Amino acid sequence: MNDRPISFSFRSDNVATVAPEIMRALEAANHGLAAAYGDDEYSALLNGKFSELFETDVTVFPVSTGTAANALSLATCARPYGAIYCHEEAHIHNAEGGATEAFSGGAKLIALSGAHGKLEPATLAAALKRADRGVRNRSQPDAVSIAQASELGTVYSLEQIAAVGSCARDAGIRFHMDGARFANALVKLGCSAPEMTWRSGVDILSFGATKNGAMGTDAIVVFDKQLVEPLSYRLRRAGQTWSKMRFAAAQLMAYIENDLYLRLASHANELASRLARELATIPDVRLMAPVEANLLFVAMPEQTIEALASAGVRFARRGGGVIRLVTRFDATEAEVDQFIALVRRFIA
Amino acid sequence: MNDRPISFSFRSDNVATVAPEIMRALEAANHGLAAAYGDDEYSALLNGKFSELFETDVTVFPVSTGTAANALSLATCARPYGAIYCHEEAHIHNAEGGATEAFSGGAKLIALSGAHGKLEPATLAAALKRADRGVRNRSQPDAVSIAQASELGTVYSLEQIAAVGSCARDAGIRFHMDGARFANALVKLGCSAPEMTWRSGVDILSFGATKNGAMGTDAIVVFDKQLVEPLSYRLRRAGQTWSKMRFAAAQLMAYIENDLYLRLASHANELASRLARELATIPDVRLMAPVEANLLFVAMPEQTIEALASAGVRFARRGGGVIRLVTRFDATEAEVDQFIALVRRFIA
Amino acid sequence: MNDRPISFSFRSDNVATVAPEIMRALEAANHGLAAAYGDDEYSALLNGKFSELFETDVTVFPVSTGTAANALSLATCARPYGAIYCHEEAHIHNAEGGATEAFSGGAKLIALSGAHGKLEPATLAAALKRADRGVRNRSQPDAVSIAQASELGTVYSLEQIAAVGSCARDAGIRFHMDGARFANALVKLGCSAPEMTWRSGVDILSFGATKNGAMGTDAIVVFDKQLVEPLSYRLRRAGQTWSKMRFAAAQLMAYIENDLYLRLASHANELASRLARELATIPDVRLMAPVEANLLFVAMPEQTIEALASAGVRFARRGGGVIRLVTRFDATEAEVDQFIALVRRFIA
Amino acid sequence: MNDRPISFSFRSDNVATVAPEIMRALEAANHGLAAAYGDDEYSALLNGKFSELFETDVTVFPVSTGTAANALSLATCARPYGAIYCHEEAHIHNAEGGATEAFSGGAKLIALSGAHGKLEPATLAAALKRADRGVRNRSQPDAVSIAQASELGTVYSLEQIAAVGSCARDAGIRFHMDGARFANALVKLGCSAPEMTWRSGVDILSFGATKNGAMGTDAIVVFDKQLVEPLSYRLRRAGQTWSKMRFAAAQLMAYIENDLYLRLASHANELASRLARELATIPDVRLMAPVEANLLFVAMPEQTIEALASAGVRFARRGGGVIRLVTRFDATEAEVDQFIALVRRFIA
Repeated sequence: MNDRPISFSFRSDNVATVAPEIMRALEAANHGLAAAYGDDEYSALLNGKFSELFETDVTVFPVSTGTAANALSLATCARPYGAIYCHEEAHIHNAEGGATEAFSGGAKLIALSGAHGKLEPATLAAALKRADRGVRNRSQPDAVSIAQASELGTVYSLEQIAAVGSCARDAGIRFHMDGARFANALVKLGCSAPEMTWRSGVDILSFGATKNGAMGTDAIVVFDKQLVEPLSYRLRRAGQTWSKMRFAAAQLMAYIENDLYLRLASHANELASRLARELATIPDVRLMAPVEANLLFVAMPEQTIEALASAGVRFARRGGGVIRLVTRFDATEAEVDQFIALVRRFIA
Repeated sequence: MNDRPISFSFRSDNVATVAPEIMRALEAANHGLAAAYGDDEYSALLNGKFSELFETDVTVFPVSTGTAANALSLATCARPYGAIYCHEEAHIHNAEGGATEAFSGGAKLIALSGAHGKLEPATLAAALKRADRGVRNRSQPDAVSIAQASELGTVYSLEQIAAVGSCARDAGIRFHMDGARFANALVKLGCSAPEMTWRSGVDILSFGATKNGAMGTDAIVVFDKQLVEPLSYRLRRAGQTWSKMRFAAAQLMAYIENDLYLRLASHANELASRLARELATIPDVRLMAPVEANLLFVAMPEQTIEALASAGVRFARRGGGVIRLVTRFDATEAEVDQFIALVRRFIA
Repeated sequence: MNDRPISFSFRSDNVATVAPEIMRALEAANHGLAAAYGDDEYSALLNGKFSELFETDVTVFPVSTGTAANALSLATCARPYGAIYCHEEAHIHNAEGGATEAFSGGAKLIALSGAHGKLEPATLAAALKRADRGVRNRSQPDAVSIAQASELGTVYSLEQIAAVGSCARDAGIRFHMDGARFANALVKLGCSAPEMTWRSGVDILSFGATKNGAMGTDAIVVFDKQLVEPLSYRLRRAGQTWSKMRFAAAQLMAYIENDLYLRLASHANELASRLARELATIPDVRLMAPVEANLLFVAMPEQTIEALASAGVRFARRGGGVIRLVTRFDATEAEVDQFIALVRRFIA
Repeated sequence: MNDRPISFSFRSDNVATVAPEIMRALEAANHGLAAAYGDDEYSALLNGKFSELFETDVTVFPVSTGTAANALSLATCARPYGAIYCHEEAHIHNAEGGATEAFSGGAKLIALSGAHGKLEPATLAAALKRADRGVRNRSQPDAVSIAQASELGTVYSLEQIAAVGSCARDAGIRFHMDGARFANALVKLGCSAPEMTWRSGVDILSFGATKNGAMGTDAIVVFDKQLVEPLSYRLRRAGQTWSKMRFAAAQLMAYIENDLYLRLASHANELASRLARELATIPDVRLMAPVEANLLFVAMPEQTIEALASAGVRFARRGGGVIRLVTRFDATEAEVDQFIALVRRFIA
């Protein structure tokens, strides 16, 4: 089968391959029979391995996409008449087609501003204060969601996460983390998975794996045990409970085994840093946000953008002379260097 | 990784492995980059290959489970105030946790009786006649759904499917086929895929693959072009659009390549026939429905059932001295023979 | 304004006028200002008056229709993946356009058979036993709903209600009563309102008033305090919270004041009994169910039905030579006698 | 029945009485029988009278509240994956508890800024341009909604409405008007009802009546005939179809008969103008928006606000030293003058 390779792409981490370790784990899982719908031994092991990783007893639900992870997590946190606070650039708000509203039965996303794609605790606190609790025609605060790393490629510090968590706890609402790029953020902070999650107040986590080397599974990691049962029913009726669950479990276990996910993310982050470092030296090129994970938002002259596109480079345009570049675990330094050379040439 | 194999199981086709051909296709697909969310070349090829198979221009949407395939297909066919007709034993009615009601915004399943798990066209016609069209407090007819093969392991003849299709066309409603065991039915009828679907009036098909050798993908095959666009949005917001869609496409293409799916299903069906043939010769054992695919519903004395269970045989109990046996593409004649020997021994 | 009066109608209690006492109460309420959305003093009084009537502390929510009362009550009792048990003839199942499914986010109605429109406790208990609790692809038991009086005009005895209540309590599910014809049933039983409701296990009641003399308000009476808050939000977002709530409260208070509702229902019931008594004496005429409230289902020759219709009598046809007759608080004995005379004449 | 009158209130037009003409119409409608659920002659007349008023063939659906009118109108205009554009101060966005999201199955409100509570056509056009049509993970443009008069008491000119209508038509989306204070806006513009609606591109209108003299009914007026049938089903299952519909129809007919609604609104508007005129002369008092209907947003010193509240005056506080005053059809010039005198006294 010949797929014309997109040889030179900073378009998305979704165009990547599957990491060889994960491919091998799928092969290894394909022996003997296994009980269906998550009652198999792989799935049992999965909970154990993630509980070790997170240093607490967690329940892991593999799901097919990040949208499923986010929307079903939030639908379990929010009443139909609930409000969910997020950043105005949040993927759940802008790029999931109303999935959270649909699965929750009409909960409302309250979009807040904040520098570089990050929700600011003070802004959240002020919004929660304005929430008119008990007033029957107002959506009632039920959850806050942040993306770590954020949609703009920035990363919340532990202090910032804890401050959001503290706000949530004070308000009696649930704290969801959209970790579509969880590993990239973890690498950046250099902290442990529990520190970046439940120890900072996170109740439920969308744990991304597909962008960083898995084949087709992300997961919901549940810290708040009250959410486990209702979520399990919601997942099944959403068509998110694979019959051959062992293959999702196998991917996720291989993903964290021996810190594979951290190594993959480190590589992607390093390529992003390399890009950022070099781009910073080019006149008329400007980084729109700190580069802290594997995403870059870069302003450059329109004719340079056109020239790059014409040369066959793949990236996303964000309008107003801004492009988004995404680095991947399976990209190379050579690609970065080639790209930089092209930019220099076209801008000259 | 050591999963204790369930060595002897007629519990479900969901406990099966992945067919080696499909495993190899996944490996083969893992080279180079591919556009995300179904914009890749594998997905384009997928539509082409299935259009060849179905001898008409179809659109194929891979999904993670049969529940997703069924509920999202039906939600696209039915208005929120619509009615969907099905058999009272239908999986969509009894075993998907209200998924169709949820995704459709409250459409109503009208469950009808019929011998051996099959909806009878006359019963459907009578129900449609009673439907009180235009009456504002009645759910309005929008779709009919049949399972081919049925939940009881029987298979509709082409004439029966066409009769349902004719009813649907006369009533101006959509015709959905739940093909969780599509291949097993096709093998039984010995007809072509188009004959069993759109040529008999089917508008949209849940095309099962996971039970019969795929790893974790089924598909929706759309014949009625009006359904394509709304379905594509519904899938995305349901979290059913994989970013690395090529791996689902690769599974599905390998599944139909060189009639692999028919060979796998033939084997399972033959094992079921062998079971049926032998069971018919055992006193106090009775088949509850014709065995036409890979499912058997068998009545036997309770103490025989207990003895089988104690011996470690896996199967599903249906109450009242009835068990369900399911054969798989990866099971063997030896297993069938061993099972028959056990039944004979315990019943004696 | 000249509405051509339908002079002779047994079609429905919905065609009735407003009782003069209720009309006067509306006039009386139209003085001075009143806080909006139920924060007024009429609404406060309403809770007090109904708490007296029901001999316990209840919360009353006026709503515009019985469908709103039923669907929002049940949506508050059931999780989206919940199951609600009811009779197969239930109005919530057949004549509310999927309202309960919609408001609940996809809960499933499990329709059970039972003689004369009444759910039998043994049938309910058996269904609850089959419910596969904890199985993720089954809708989980959350509520049972009965109509008192039933859709077939029969009335549950206190023992029968208590038996349903006992089933519900044992199963840990909520018990809803659809009291669209609450007063007619209460009159029939000659018991108190608390006896027919919470003392028999009812958690939440759709309290009908419009069919029996109010202008355009029914109510939800909540006995289970846990339901009050979530219901109040659901009502507001359903558009069921009138700004000028005092006028709904005024109707409902006048309705129960000095047992007006019982007097109105007694009259309707007596007319129904008179009809039943007389019809029983006519050859070829047969009552299909015991006449215990203000509804009669009567079998008679098709040509008699045609003749009655041609003579201008209004009634509902139920197919198969059966008609439904409904008596009203504002109908007269003379009308009944005239109708009987017509039947006698046409049948001869 | 003694409701303690709130003698002196600018809190809301929802605290008002029912206009005597409407009360008399209710009395007059209470004779003879009438078919149920809108099949009566009053309802037929209602469509005729509103068709005269709007100079085109319209369908009118009485509903119990403005929230029901808005949310069900918009749910009929928008697909579940649709987007609805509105002002960030819109009642549908902030004060209906997510009703539109719920009834539509998860459509998304896109909130836009604009001076004095009014959506600006250029802002709308820009947002529509950014909408990423055809992109599967973006909510797709389906409707725009404006409030006339707006939530800040301002009124769109005919040119402004037509500009929004033109945007909507160009974008192929529906145009909804929230006319909770329709009459107040109409009086302000001095134009005809058709000019302010369908002649300016409006497809569907929430026609407010309760705030301006009706007892408990608003209405949906449908100009776009394609919306009539789906809306009629949605209303019934939402519990918004009164059985005794004649009493809603009677209110609405009396409301427009001999321009009653305009006279009532004129009076309220004049009181608002009088308030505005006087307040403008008081130092330290500032109007926050042009006063064009019966709402005023007024900034004044906090101690003045406190003093007014202590004196028993009713109004709504909006934080930051701003209060909202609402005038009513049943308020008097004397009340306005008394209020002004109080402000002058307290501010001194």
